[in-house]
Amino acid sequence: MYSLKEQEAIIARAICNLKFVKEPAGLYEPLEYMMSIGGKRIRPRLCLAAYNLYSDDIGDNIISPALALEIFHNFTLLHDDIMDRADTRRGQLTVCKKWGDNVAILSGDVMCILAYKWLTACPADKQPQVLELFTKMGAEVCEGQQYDMEFETQPVVTGEEYINMIGLKTAALLACSVKMGAVIANAPEAQAEALYNFGWQIGLAFQISDDYLDTFGDPHVFGKKIGGDIMCGKKTWLLVEALKRASGESRKRLNEILAMGDDRAEEKIAAMQQLYIDLGVKQDAVKAIEEYHEKAMECLSGNGFTPEQLDILKEFSASLVHRED
Amino acid sequence: MYSLKEQEAIIARAICNLKFVKEPAGLYEPLEYMMSIGGKRIRPRLCLAAYNLYSDDIGDNIISPALALEIFHNFTLLHDDIMDRADTRRGQLTVCKKWGDNVAILSGDVMCILAYKWLTACPADKQPQVLELFTKMGAEVCEGQQYDMEFETQPVVTGEEYINMIGLKTAALLACSVKMGAVIANAPEAQAEALYNFGWQIGLAFQISDDYLDTFGDPHVFGKKIGGDIMCGKKTWLLVEALKRASGESRKRLNEILAMGDDRAEEKIAAMQQLYIDLGVKQDAVKAIEEYHEKAMECLSGNGFTPEQLDILKEFSASLVHRED
Repeated sequence: MYSLKEQEAIIARAICNLKFVKEPAGLYEPLEYMMSIGGKRIRPRLCLAAYNLYSDDIGDNIISPALALEIFHNFTLLHDDIMDRADTRRGQLTVCKKWGDNVAILSGDVMCILAYKWLTACPADKQPQVLELFTKMGAEVCEGQQYDMEFETQPVVTGEEYINMIGLKTAALLACSVKMGAVIANAPEAQAEALYNFGWQIGLAFQISDDYLDTFGDPHVFGKKIGGDIMCGKKTWLLVEALKRASGESRKRLNEILAMGDDRAEEKIAAMQQLYIDLGVKQDAVKAIEEYHEKAMECLSGNGFTPEQLDILKEFSASLVHRED
Repeated sequence: MYSLKEQEAIIARAICNLKFVKEPAGLYEPLEYMMSIGGKRIRPRLCLAAYNLYSDDIGDNIISPALALEIFHNFTLLHDDIMDRADTRRGQLTVCKKWGDNVAILSGDVMCILAYKWLTACPADKQPQVLELFTKMGAEVCEGQQYDMEFETQPVVTGEEYINMIGLKTAALLACSVKMGAVIANAPEAQAEALYNFGWQIGLAFQISDDYLDTFGDPHVFGKKIGGDIMCGKKTWLLVEALKRASGESRKRLNEILAMGDDRAEEKIAAMQQLYIDLGVKQDAVKAIEEYHEKAMECLSGNGFTPEQLDILKEFSASLVHRED
């Protein structure tokens, strides 16, 4: 079995070697740009880690499908940036800002199609199962994005609705990634299913920690401005909980903060951070992350994983859940 | 073998029975709307016709992949309408006009993914070949759309560039449709390849006749306003040829017509129609359609097709090329 560091290096190298650009360059250049501006490559790394639980024989049969997950993820980001009217991503201009919306729509489309191209490099006998898994996930990610957009104008979002949304938008892809690696490595069915559920719970923990870091992260480590979600009134785990808990004075205060304009950014962010602390939302977010992390580990128990396999999965999930960036 | 009329009825029934809508309805309703507003269903009919050359056993194994082609086609139309800022399609509001751009982007995305879902209902042993064919086509359609957009601001487009563009944008999908039916029916490889080339040439003829009808069609039969391409200065077969042929006086006249504004629509359309006639472009468009039609038929010869098979293919291609709507 390779160490997580070694697996990360394998994926980083494979992404460096990805070549998309051909004619017309106006269509394909944005793909290479999008793939090159970074990210943690969590999805292909999860896929490779799951595969490597069963097989050390790492070739195109697993690298290509793993890259398909990253290509698909970047396709969704590319289109999300149009819908969110985002100007920057990871400190760089978004594709829609750099080349315009039409190029971003079309480059995203071809990226989705190319994800399938990379996917089909998996072993032929696994193709039907892998395709079904991937296509189900693809639809779920779109459903999650739709709910996320609808939440923007929906006055009340329940905790259950929020968890359902991030399940579809974020956890489905992580779950698919980890199961896909197992399926391609010919893992026992029960273990592949356990890994899917593990990935789903880790995905929920991962998204809540993303929400947490956007408000309480260390800006030097997090790599982007703190408070972006607060400024655009995004229905994060924190805000959904605060809306549920606030009443009387705190409810009044919450409404005041939500009504503050962009000209009072610093004040708005500081006030919301304080309110999250006062309402106990900050500390409960940390608890929720831990709870989903524990649920993830429970998904693995009783399925005959070896201690060595469990160690790698624990190490990976801890790095996703206890990250600071 | 079923008649083309019977095949058409089979496809129409299958499309009527398509169900997309589930939660969130905001994502899936536009799909059902888009599929319901009509169209000639040429791609699934071509796929079924090719399959039926070899097999009368028509079940989900061929109907589902045939529908995947129509779903994919409608996904591209849905996104094209955003890029073209189109308000209506087939006399109905476009999805982007009715629900907004964000919904149109996301509904299109899920439609592309669902096309793959329907596709994977093909026999498992054919899946790798069918997926490769489909995915190659998908990228080509995006490439064609990119060229089409780039042509809008490109002063000179050569005839060769134009044919390359419509090959990618239109012919690739028709070629894929007809080959896919043959592959799923287990046709001899040489015949499947011949059918692909046949479909490509028919696709070129089909697109040029589309350009022709937009300018010289009978508005009562064509079903939409005549002169739309002229009004938006689209680089059609007619305009590309006219730009090549016009010189001196006729060049001056062409530039004058191109410069006419929307307030002189009737005059602009009539003047361009007349210029196309004067330059011989109108009659040569009809010739070009016939030439590609003949090339299509030549692709079939010497590949051992039976007279019965050839008859059906001739009947189908004639209906596509000699259509009036």
